[in-house]
Amino acid sequence: MMIHIKVPATSANMGPGFDSIGVALTLYNHIWVEEIEEGLQIDIKRKQPIPIPTDESNLIYRTMCHFYHEKGIPVPGIHLVQEDFIPMVRGLGSSAACIVGGLVAANELAGRPCDKEELAQMAAKLEGHPDNSSPAIFGNMVVGAMDEKHLRHICMKLPEDLVFAIMVPDFPVSTEKSRAVLPDVYTRADVVYNVSRAALLVASVAEGNNENLAMAMEDKIHQPYRKTLIPHMDEIFAKAKEAGALACYLSGAGSTLMAMITDENAEVFQEQMSSYFKGIPNHWEITLLKPDNEGATAVKE
Amino acid sequence: MMIHIKVPATSANMGPGFDSIGVALTLYNHIWVEEIEEGLQIDIKRKQPIPIPTDESNLIYRTMCHFYHEKGIPVPGIHLVQEDFIPMVRGLGSSAACIVGGLVAANELAGRPCDKEELAQMAAKLEGHPDNSSPAIFGNMVVGAMDEKHLRHICMKLPEDLVFAIMVPDFPVSTEKSRAVLPDVYTRADVVYNVSRAALLVASVAEGNNENLAMAMEDKIHQPYRKTLIPHMDEIFAKAKEAGALACYLSGAGSTLMAMITDENAEVFQEQMSSYFKGIPNHWEITLLKPDNEGATAVKE
Repeated sequence: MMIHIKVPATSANMGPGFDSIGVALTLYNHIWVEEIEEGLQIDIKRKQPIPIPTDESNLIYRTMCHFYHEKGIPVPGIHLVQEDFIPMVRGLGSSAACIVGGLVAANELAGRPCDKEELAQMAAKLEGHPDNSSPAIFGNMVVGAMDEKHLRHICMKLPEDLVFAIMVPDFPVSTEKSRAVLPDVYTRADVVYNVSRAALLVASVAEGNNENLAMAMEDKIHQPYRKTLIPHMDEIFAKAKEAGALACYLSGAGSTLMAMITDENAEVFQEQMSSYFKGIPNHWEITLLKPDNEGATAVKE
Repeated sequence: MMIHIKVPATSANMGPGFDSIGVALTLYNHIWVEEIEEGLQIDIKRKQPIPIPTDESNLIYRTMCHFYHEKGIPVPGIHLVQEDFIPMVRGLGSSAACIVGGLVAANELAGRPCDKEELAQMAAKLEGHPDNSSPAIFGNMVVGAMDEKHLRHICMKLPEDLVFAIMVPDFPVSTEKSRAVLPDVYTRADVVYNVSRAALLVASVAEGNNENLAMAMEDKIHQPYRKTLIPHMDEIFAKAKEAGALACYLSGAGSTLMAMITDENAEVFQEQMSSYFKGIPNHWEITLLKPDNEGATAVKE
């Protein structure tokens, strides 16, 4: 009998919410784990363009070991099967999914000593920011703030008719490169720009107000700098808005570009954008996702 | 017959929401206006320590003239009676109350060509930030974001049991001085600190979660710099938390310090803080206020 863990993709740095606001989406990595006599056996069910380590450097396994150490539990022998659908290094939380998956896996094997809240605290500390790990654990949109010791977060349901169109290019942007282009300091005007929009975004979601999203999703912390790493970013956003997007943003550290649309205009959006993408360099793949409402799940199979 | 306009005090820069989040409180300035044959007559019903101009430099009158010019209406003769209870230059929105009062007064005399939304747009442009003027117009907590052309805002009801204890000292802090001590730039860590907390504050208010307020009200944009202008600020905040405050912050640009408490512990809070204030220099006056739910009102009398 194995435990089957399912972890959603997540889109962090949502609009103005740099390192603060993220959303879980209906695209998943799957993990199956069981304890074995000794050692480590990792099977990769689905190849990715970047090879996934099958030794002790595997991120899920390393995170499981971290959990056992934290809880003072000896590391057991582990058999791990990994099937990933979240594209890697594209700003869709594939690393966070491995970290969350590893924590949930170890927690399940250990008889569930931690609740989701504790796992979220651990994951946010490992990641340094909560906007991938918290939605990966709880689902929905999650707003999180951290200090040295603690994470506080609130889960918010998004409007039912909202669709997230992920536009994923054939090139990665590494988090390191993406961080390197950011400035060291920001003017007070830019700070107020993001603070006010982050507050407006959360208030608009709470009130179910989609009309504010165009303004509420604007950002001056990272997108103006990172757009140099994503050819045609401004043009793609402009086209997406023409095609009916309520708002657009760079997902995580990129390279995925996100458009928030509604059920109603999803089909037209996908058609128009697919046809537009044929005319620009690089291959771009559009997939329509909904917000995930469950977060990470674990079931015995 | 005169028109009686009532405008609430407002507390801007609420926690991390610098220039973005403010709340209206149950403390009011009153204005009575009527059209007269010609000229200007201003009566001041209640003296303030700072003299209020009774000529054309009066802020309410100037704002009325601004409204008439914007709307292309000739300025009529005006009789204005002004009774202020909001203390001046204390970070409680007394100027915003005059600006909002002037706009509402002129709008009423002109037969109400504008709705509250339009008045809020005008007031925010005059003020340069919406976090006093919008709550003064709409009541409640208001989250607002601006660009060059437009303000977008959302009104949010605060928990019923919340009390705002204003702690007003006998010294003013001018907005100019208060702006001068602020740095020109901020680190990314400080930006994320405020963005995440502003988002958490709004989410916590939306969910009625008071437990997050201590963290969600923290700020690194202005309070760490302005506390040099308010003797004992850190100590007063520490004492207020000992006395049961959920969170504390510097109201507007100061000098008022604000403690958020609940109905339940209001009496004990006031007693403990009054006794503490007797032992430090300067005179501090505590008044318990509730959030105002109506905003500016106008009635014929």
